[in-house]
Amino acid sequence: MSAQPVLVLVPGVTGASADGAPFARADEAAAQLTVIDLGVTRGDGIFETVGVFDGAPQNLGPHLRRLARSAEMLELPAPDLGILEEAFALAVAEHEDVPELSVRVVMTRGDEGTGVPTAWIHARESADWSRERAGIRVSALSRGLPSTVVADSPWLLAGAKTLSYAGNMSAVREAKRRGDDDVLFVSTDGYALEGPTSTLLVRLGETFVTTPLSAGVLQGTCVASVFEMLAAAGRTTGEKLLTPAEVLASDGAWLLSSTRLVAPITHLDGQELPVDAELTARLLAHLRGA
Amino acid sequence: MSAQPVLVLVPGVTGASADGAPFARADEAAAQLTVIDLGVTRGDGIFETVGVFDGAPQNLGPHLRRLARSAEMLELPAPDLGILEEAFALAVAEHEDVPELSVRVVMTRGDEGTGVPTAWIHARESADWSRERAGIRVSALSRGLPSTVVADSPWLLAGAKTLSYAGNMSAVREAKRRGDDDVLFVSTDGYALEGPTSTLLVRLGETFVTTPLSAGVLQGTCVASVFEMLAAAGRTTGEKLLTPAEVLASDGAWLLSSTRLVAPITHLDGQELPVDAELTARLLAHLRGA
Repeated sequence: MSAQPVLVLVPGVTGASADGAPFARADEAAAQLTVIDLGVTRGDGIFETVGVFDGAPQNLGPHLRRLARSAEMLELPAPDLGILEEAFALAVAEHEDVPELSVRVVMTRGDEGTGVPTAWIHARESADWSRERAGIRVSALSRGLPSTVVADSPWLLAGAKTLSYAGNMSAVREAKRRGDDDVLFVSTDGYALEGPTSTLLVRLGETFVTTPLSAGVLQGTCVASVFEMLAAAGRTTGEKLLTPAEVLASDGAWLLSSTRLVAPITHLDGQELPVDAELTARLLAHLRGA
Repeated sequence: MSAQPVLVLVPGVTGASADGAPFARADEAAAQLTVIDLGVTRGDGIFETVGVFDGAPQNLGPHLRRLARSAEMLELPAPDLGILEEAFALAVAEHEDVPELSVRVVMTRGDEGTGVPTAWIHARESADWSRERAGIRVSALSRGLPSTVVADSPWLLAGAKTLSYAGNMSAVREAKRRGDDDVLFVSTDGYALEGPTSTLLVRLGETFVTTPLSAGVLQGTCVASVFEMLAAAGRTTGEKLLTPAEVLASDGAWLLSSTRLVAPITHLDGQELPVDAELTARLLAHLRGA
């Protein structure tokens, strides 16, 4: 984490005719946001974190399309994905060459009263995930919400990737207090959902499943990639609601995310799961774009 | 809303020996926060909004103590309430004299990796709440969480006043889409909880009740003041879980908050409630500190 992070501000994120350039590099160590930005006063904004491996962004298109869906769910102005793509490329190009970059794309509702979103791209060297890629211990923790939340209560924004992550961060602290590394959220009606910053993948024999979007989870970009790879290898893939007990009884489970990529669950609430190191390595290589 | 807002930054919020002054006025129109402040990237921070009426802050002590409780729940460093009180006084003193000020006290987890919170006080003239103080139409909307969430899932931070308010803001947009002004959140087990930025007060004959803290609502500073006033007038006060139907069948209901103060609910999901304008005026005068 020694290389200098790169910040690109994107005043032209909504394509509106900004006075100057639609995006430009800025000083990442300097203050850039006001204290009335609704991103900070209300956690009212959206983001994506994109992995860049040996200079190549993985799933940038799906990430930007998910950002656009989040914007719709929050009734934010539609982001100009072309502008964001160019700004993203600038941030990556300006960053020192490192094997793994973690690039955050953020759009907030902007300064209160203006109706003008604030947006930026922030690229920095990824943390060293080698330990987690070998295996993680996971606590199953309630998310408090039923698996029917999307249909019942769309205003709760389940499935949108908002900046309001205080509860997610708190859940990870609870897992660490329990001696674990990460969290698998569980619905109040007893189904495994996703991690606070990751998607669940479960193997049931030669079938691989993830959580249905209807349960209020985020649409995973990694799991889509992994499903393509597995389908090409003749495996069945799909969505299925599973209980934590069914995850425990499965043939293996992973949490997928865009910079850590793939983390096999070795233990769920202290109980051991089978880990397939060879398959995990293949998933990792695929997600890394090798 | 023409008077100039006043910003006071509080680098000494944790009482740590900051290099310079523990707080100082800063340019509120200028950028003051970095893009790696966890307040914006994760909604990871806490806040209070305090009303100041004719120069007198209302319930500043209870607000700051609630901030300290929120800090504990989020495992943030404990804020130095004495420093915050002094910084608060400076912000109010520096603001042009207006009848009603809305003063926000914010503390975030700070720039990622530093462990040093960011804190500020932001004072601005309140919106004109005269219409809402005469009456509001309210939509009952599910919060998705059961009324047992505090006991079941403390990591979800129900009852802490965090910056992660995207869902609260979205619920208000849903209410407006329905032709209403505000929201009364309902638990998944069917109890009226609170508004997105307010506390519920209900009259049942000569008894006045609010939602039990155990249901995961924020401890209201206004309702404590109102209960003191009502108790002094010989009324019974207390906590009680009510269904929306019981609220509708009550002798009147209000949403209380620190700058709007008191808003009688005229309609809940389109159904009319009794409104006692005289009592509402007395509650308003009491909360305004008259």
